[in-house]
Amino acid sequence: MNKYKLTLSYDGTHYSGWQAQANGVSIQTLVEQALGTALRAEVALIGSGRTDSGVHALAQTAHFCVGGPVDLYRLLASLNGLLPRDIRVERVEAAPHDFHARYSAKSKTYFYHLHLESSHDSFKRLYSLHVPCPIDLALLRQAAGCFVGTHDFTSFTNEGGEVQDKVRTLFRLDVAEEPGGVRLEFEGDGFLYKMVRTIVGTLLEVASRKRALEEIPALFAAKDRRRAGPAAPAHGLFLVQVDYGV
Amino acid sequence: MNKYKLTLSYDGTHYSGWQAQANGVSIQTLVEQALGTALRAEVALIGSGRTDSGVHALAQTAHFCVGGPVDLYRLLASLNGLLPRDIRVERVEAAPHDFHARYSAKSKTYFYHLHLESSHDSFKRLYSLHVPCPIDLALLRQAAGCFVGTHDFTSFTNEGGEVQDKVRTLFRLDVAEEPGGVRLEFEGDGFLYKMVRTIVGTLLEVASRKRALEEIPALFAAKDRRRAGPAAPAHGLFLVQVDYGV
Repeated sequence: MNKYKLTLSYDGTHYSGWQAQANGVSIQTLVEQALGTALRAEVALIGSGRTDSGVHALAQTAHFCVGGPVDLYRLLASLNGLLPRDIRVERVEAAPHDFHARYSAKSKTYFYHLHLESSHDSFKRLYSLHVPCPIDLALLRQAAGCFVGTHDFTSFTNEGGEVQDKVRTLFRLDVAEEPGGVRLEFEGDGFLYKMVRTIVGTLLEVASRKRALEEIPALFAAKDRRRAGPAAPAHGLFLVQVDYGV
Repeated sequence: MNKYKLTLSYDGTHYSGWQAQANGVSIQTLVEQALGTALRAEVALIGSGRTDSGVHALAQTAHFCVGGPVDLYRLLASLNGLLPRDIRVERVEAAPHDFHARYSAKSKTYFYHLHLESSHDSFKRLYSLHVPCPIDLALLRQAAGCFVGTHDFTSFTNEGGEVQDKVRTLFRLDVAEEPGGVRLEFEGDGFLYKMVRTIVGTLLEVASRKRALEEIPALFAAKDRRRAGPAAPAHGLFLVQVDYGV
């Protein structure tokens, strides 16, 4: 068996998310089907992690195994010919036998885009969260700083994940200005279910003075999801990079 | 009666175009409905011109008349609250009594975006034409130059327009490089039905060596739509500016 790594970008607007679901079309399913057609073999695709319905990716990664050698250039062209136009395979590479798209990952980067002008932008509506009321960017930056480091993120993830250990390290949470708003850049060793979106929702409460900055340490200590803010909508979120430290 | 000018941006993907149609939802209809609700009066909206189904606008203009004064700031906020998220009113201004969104226009600017990488881009698919085969940019620039100036554009417009005089002046047709491709910038005193898209289709034939550069003068002389290239798809086209010379 040979192992291959895929790097994919996709506009998540019209999908039920990465993972196969009972209802709705998933990106994983479509890519598996395209692989099956291109390689004339049934192929199981393992992603670096799930992205929820509406979440986008600039560089999701996944691996699959197949018997016999594969012409990588032809496979890339075939997949992009077979896949719908809102999913694109950026790269296909041979991977070592011990490579695993999920367990080999050393860090991940997510961007969350906030559009901060008073009226909406027709071309940003599917790719950023519109926050029409003024927010305090200095407070946003201060609050973001409170999340950096190693913490138990139980208060910032929904129940239902398989994962028991809720301790994660956020290497950075930067607030970068971009035209019309800001981009929240999350880089960490791993992210729990809805963790980025719940942090964004909580940050927005602080930045709009609905919650005191000083409450954040108590939120971590509570280990209670009900204490944190609501999860921000999916459409502002992009999976930007999965780093394997090679 | 007071006259007002609207400046609008919209993502044309989900609409049947600017003008009210028997089937499909038009942008004009939605804006007229929003104006009717906001002003509690039946309002007729006159646009600077039609945009076809799938064509986008960064600054379409239109005018309407209404009895009594209007609070411009409140109207702007109401319209953006009432309209769907893929249509946005950028500005509402009082206009002189002799202003006409169509007949007062001195020039218009359209951009057509070409995405020139070998594989498609999920995030550009609705906003540029993907041209996966290599094209000759020097030839594209040379061919573009042949269209600048005052010409009879009969060969580059579809039958069926009300307009008899097909002579127009193209002030410029620039090829501007942008990430992943080029942007064709058209500025002229007026544009016939499907004129920009038919010029783009013809330029692409020349730039991909399916048609000789030297044929272009004969295309103008023929005054026959069947001689020119196919109209390029709507989704690469943006109405960028309508200039009233004030």
